[in-house]
Amino acid sequence: MGTTIDYRTLVGSNPDKMFKATIFESPRLLLGLNCLEPGQTDRIHTHEDQDKFYYVIEGDGEFTVGDEIVTASAGETIPVPAGLTHGVRNYGVARLVVLMGLTPWPGP
Amino acid sequence: MGTTIDYRTLVGSNPDKMFKATIFESPRLLLGLNCLEPGQTDRIHTHEDQDKFYYVIEGDGEFTVGDEIVTASAGETIPVPAGLTHGVRNYGVARLVVLMGLTPWPGP
Repeated sequence: MGTTIDYRTLVGSNPDKMFKATIFESPRLLLGLNCLEPGQTDRIHTHEDQDKFYYVIEGDGEFTVGDEIVTASAGETIPVPAGLTHGVRNYGVARLVVLMGLTPWPGP
Repeated sequence: MGTTIDYRTLVGSNPDKMFKATIFESPRLLLGLNCLEPGQTDRIHTHEDQDKFYYVIEGDGEFTVGDEIVTASAGETIPVPAGLTHGVRNYGVARLVVLMGLTPWPGP
């Protein structure tokens, strides 16, 4: 595999919930795109045995990680170590696009 | 942990070789920044049991993955499944900044 994937070809929206697209997946890693329209959220949840990270590509996100709430814009990474509750909300006025990695990846 | 990490605070250069900075590390994941000045390279190498990905943040990179050579600019991801040889070269005129993930992470 030697191709590149431009995130702009995977961006999308779903009126009912956060839009997800897969960039790469293996038993070791799920790498994907999370797209949230203004006001949309990804509910608080936890992965007991997987680390996650968010890297903001576009927009303004409010991230809950454990007991903390932080805001992040393009160029900022939010690490989520295994076992911490986490969630996302688009509190901005434009689409929020986030590169998301989850490791390992036991499957959906 | 609820802090965010702005990649711009970690960018750097080394005249002798590719500059690396760590964003997050655990046994599951090494997430870091690779910075290459114009003409700099990261030599071809292989991780037998780890997947890697590159996500280009700034600049123009030439990536070797297995038998293929591809170029990528901001917004493009290059997946490198375990066992494939890979390397990077900055063929542009500005600094190349790449978000790099390696999973799992047995340590240096």
